[in-house]
Amino acid sequence: MNQDISPLELRKQIRSGEFSGNTSGYAKGYVQGNLCILPADWANDFLQFCQLNPKPCPLIGLASKPGDFNLAKLGADLDIRTDLPSYRIFKDGELQREVNDISDYWRDDLVSFVLGCSFSFEEALIADGLEIRNVSEGVNVPMYRTHIDCAEAGRFSGKMVVSMRPMLPSDAIRAIQICTRFPAVHGAPIHFGDPDLIGIADINTPEFGDAVTIRENEVPVFWACGVTPQVVLEQAKPPFCITHSPGCMLVTDLPNSQLAIM
Amino acid sequence: MNQDISPLELRKQIRSGEFSGNTSGYAKGYVQGNLCILPADWANDFLQFCQLNPKPCPLIGLASKPGDFNLAKLGADLDIRTDLPSYRIFKDGELQREVNDISDYWRDDLVSFVLGCSFSFEEALIADGLEIRNVSEGVNVPMYRTHIDCAEAGRFSGKMVVSMRPMLPSDAIRAIQICTRFPAVHGAPIHFGDPDLIGIADINTPEFGDAVTIRENEVPVFWACGVTPQVVLEQAKPPFCITHSPGCMLVTDLPNSQLAIM
Repeated sequence: MNQDISPLELRKQIRSGEFSGNTSGYAKGYVQGNLCILPADWANDFLQFCQLNPKPCPLIGLASKPGDFNLAKLGADLDIRTDLPSYRIFKDGELQREVNDISDYWRDDLVSFVLGCSFSFEEALIADGLEIRNVSEGVNVPMYRTHIDCAEAGRFSGKMVVSMRPMLPSDAIRAIQICTRFPAVHGAPIHFGDPDLIGIADINTPEFGDAVTIRENEVPVFWACGVTPQVVLEQAKPPFCITHSPGCMLVTDLPNSQLAIM
Repeated sequence: MNQDISPLELRKQIRSGEFSGNTSGYAKGYVQGNLCILPADWANDFLQFCQLNPKPCPLIGLASKPGDFNLAKLGADLDIRTDLPSYRIFKDGELQREVNDISDYWRDDLVSFVLGCSFSFEEALIADGLEIRNVSEGVNVPMYRTHIDCAEAGRFSGKMVVSMRPMLPSDAIRAIQICTRFPAVHGAPIHFGDPDLIGIADINTPEFGDAVTIRENEVPVFWACGVTPQVVLEQAKPPFCITHSPGCMLVTDLPNSQLAIM
C-alpha cells in the first residue's frame, strides 16, 4: 500500500477493514497518537495525571465531553470507535481481548484521551540527518521501567517508563535541541549515559520492545515513554478501560510541524 | 566595590584608573566580550574565520571601519582604547607586554573585533538553578586543546579550544536547552562524556584555566571556547595584534537577554 496516503483516507480504509496492522510509516508528516478511554468517574484523575506528568503523558486531544467519539479537532470525519486498526479492552486492569472495532463496547460515559507519541519526534530527527537505531534495525524501540516516580494523581501513580535510542554525544546534543521543540511528543530526553542512575539494571534486556545495537562511543539517550500511562493504568485497575494495541495508533490530521512550539 | 555598577559607570572607572582587575561578576546582566584588534590587511581573513567558526568565535561587535575606536552599538561613550582594564600587545604572534591603555599604540588601520564570552551563558545557567563548578569553586573554567579542526580562512587555521563544566546528565540536558538560545556566546555544547573522543588526554590537566572537581555520576560537558581565536592568532603570527588580558573584558551596554534568539 502507498505509505503517502492521507490521514483521512487511511482512517477510512481502517474503518472499512481494508487496512489492518501497524500504522508506523503511513501518512508521513502527520501526528499519530496513543489512545486511552476511561469511564467519566475515572477521567478526572487521569486528566490530572497527564497534567502533572507531561513528559510521559503529553495530552494532544481530549473528548469534548463523556460519550464524544469524534474528537473533531484531531481529524475530519473521525470516529474513535472504528478508526484505529486494533484496540485492547481491559477489565479491572486485566487485558480481556483485542478487537478491530469498539462500537459494541461504547458507552455514553466514556472519555477519550489521545497522547502524543515518539513517531513525531523520530521523524524530525531523521529529517535532520540523525540515525534512529530502532528504525534502521527495523525493530520496536527498547523500553525500560525506571525508578523515577511519576507525580501521583488520585488513583493513578507509578514509575516512569522510558524509551532508549543510542547516539554519539554530538548527535545527542542535536537530538536534545530538536526534541525540545516538541513538548507534545515527550519533549527533550530525561537522561543520557549510565542506565543505572535511573534504575535500569541491564540495557540489553528491555522490558518492552526490542534490544538495539549500541555502537562504540555511543551513549544511550532516554526519553519519557507513552507506555508509562499503560503501566499506571494496569496498576490502578479501573473497572473498564480501552487502549490502542501497540503500534496501531490513531492517525490524526495534525501535521507534526504543528506540534513544534518554536 | 558595588558589583551592581552600570556598564557605562564601570567603563568610566576603568578609563580613569579607578577600577582595575577582572571584570567577572561586575555589571551583572550585561554582555562582556573578548577583544581582538588587527591591522586592516589582516582583518578580512579574521572576519571570515569568525564567520566560518561561529561556535568558538561568535562575533557580537565589529568596528564600523578601520580606525574606529567607538563601536557605538556596544555602548554609550565607549572607547575601545581605554575602557578595558588590561590589554595584551602582540608582535609577530609574540606577547610583548600588558598595558592598561592602548592609546599610544593606536593606528588608523586597526580593526576591532568583539566576540561573545561564556560569562553570559553561565549567568543564564545559574539563573536557572544549575551549579557552575568553576564559579562555585572560585576558579577559572578549565580549558583544553582538542583535535577538532577549525574551518580555515586565509592565514588563520588551527584546532578548537573547549571549556568544560561537569554536570549530572539531567542538568546537562537543561544546559543544552538554555545555551541553544545563545548562539552569540558559544551556543550549545559541542560534546559531553568521553574526553578522548575530542582529543583530550587528561581531563584533570587543563591547558588553560584551572582543574575543577568532577563528582560521581557527573559527565564533563564541553563548549567551544573564546581562547580558540587567541591560539589561532598566535599561530598565524600577524605583525601586530592587540587582545584583552584574560578576565579583563569589554563590558558592553547589551543586556545578556538581548543575545537570546528565542
